[in-house]
Amino acid sequence: MSAFKSIDFYFDFSSPYAFFSIDKIERLANEYNRTLNWKPILLGVIIKETGNLVLREQPLKSEYAMNDWNRISRFDNIDWSFPSKFPVSSVNAARLFYLISEREKNTGVKFAKEVFKAYFVQNIDISCLDELIRIAEYCEIDRGNLESSLNEKSVKLKLREETANAIESGVVGSPFFVIDGEPFWGSDRMWMIKRWLKSGGW
Amino acid sequence: MSAFKSIDFYFDFSSPYAFFSIDKIERLANEYNRTLNWKPILLGVIIKETGNLVLREQPLKSEYAMNDWNRISRFDNIDWSFPSKFPVSSVNAARLFYLISEREKNTGVKFAKEVFKAYFVQNIDISCLDELIRIAEYCEIDRGNLESSLNEKSVKLKLREETANAIESGVVGSPFFVIDGEPFWGSDRMWMIKRWLKSGGW
Repeated sequence: MSAFKSIDFYFDFSSPYAFFSIDKIERLANEYNRTLNWKPILLGVIIKETGNLVLREQPLKSEYAMNDWNRISRFDNIDWSFPSKFPVSSVNAARLFYLISEREKNTGVKFAKEVFKAYFVQNIDISCLDELIRIAEYCEIDRGNLESSLNEKSVKLKLREETANAIESGVVGSPFFVIDGEPFWGSDRMWMIKRWLKSGGW
Repeated sequence: MSAFKSIDFYFDFSSPYAFFSIDKIERLANEYNRTLNWKPILLGVIIKETGNLVLREQPLKSEYAMNDWNRISRFDNIDWSFPSKFPVSSVNAARLFYLISEREKNTGVKFAKEVFKAYFVQNIDISCLDELIRIAEYCEIDRGNLESSLNEKSVKLKLREETANAIESGVVGSPFFVIDGEPFWGSDRMWMIKRWLKSGGW
């Protein structure tokens, strides 16, 4: 039954469209009593696997996207500042997320939100491990053995598995939502997700 | 002034997302007193130019899109049947559109709607010139010299120019809307277009 009472939220920590969808998907999950499963993945791996191209290989599309991001932040009234380094590797952030979540799920979510905020509001380089540790400490996570654990095989494997699962589930971009087995791609699909949750798919 | 009172609607006749946006963009144009400029272009040329990949080169994305199209037709209550031949060349349809529109703008729009309907509702192969002529006749367009005119240099040039203009205007996909110089991409961007038209951009 539990598979039918959740929303899988796949994202890359360096995805602006994922950042812009956080509040909306959380509101929908609350409204329809669904657990929101935060699932950071590596979009670069998925794009390679699906035979697509990354944004920086498509300059005209990048230009469109840049204008679009600024416009979304304006229209949706979301704090936003385009990071001076973009995109960045999100591998450390994703690994840390899973490591923290294993200990306590809610703290993982808190950490994820702070990572997004650090990157897209405060212009902090989230590929930098020191910065990530600072964010973890801000979330009152015990620094303890975080850094050393990050290089353990099981932690690396976890992110690799989640990214492979995402591909298996049909994930082709970020953000990507899977609800009752149904795939929804993009921050603009909230109307469809709402409709799905409301009607049970019809 | 007239440039500020229109909506440029770029599309490829073989684009499902363009088909799904017709009613919505027409309603918005009416509501905000904008002239809707129908501008068929060749998406294949644009995709090549922008260094992107066509859908059939991305099987996982195609699979997602197929499910998405069916779902949009269901959620938005739009008659729809996936064409048995997809995609098809839209070059003849686009040339005919410009040829007919030169004679009478409104008839061009009527023809465009019938072409979309033929392809996405009635499963008619719109790459086939005979079928297109039948659609033109159904729109009460004088068959006259349509066929022979279609191969005139000026007609070929018109479509080439419109496609080049589209690229110049930043068009990277279909449907794509340009309003007061502002670009909007996708059938899901109606909320942004509405907001833009309502507020004048803010």
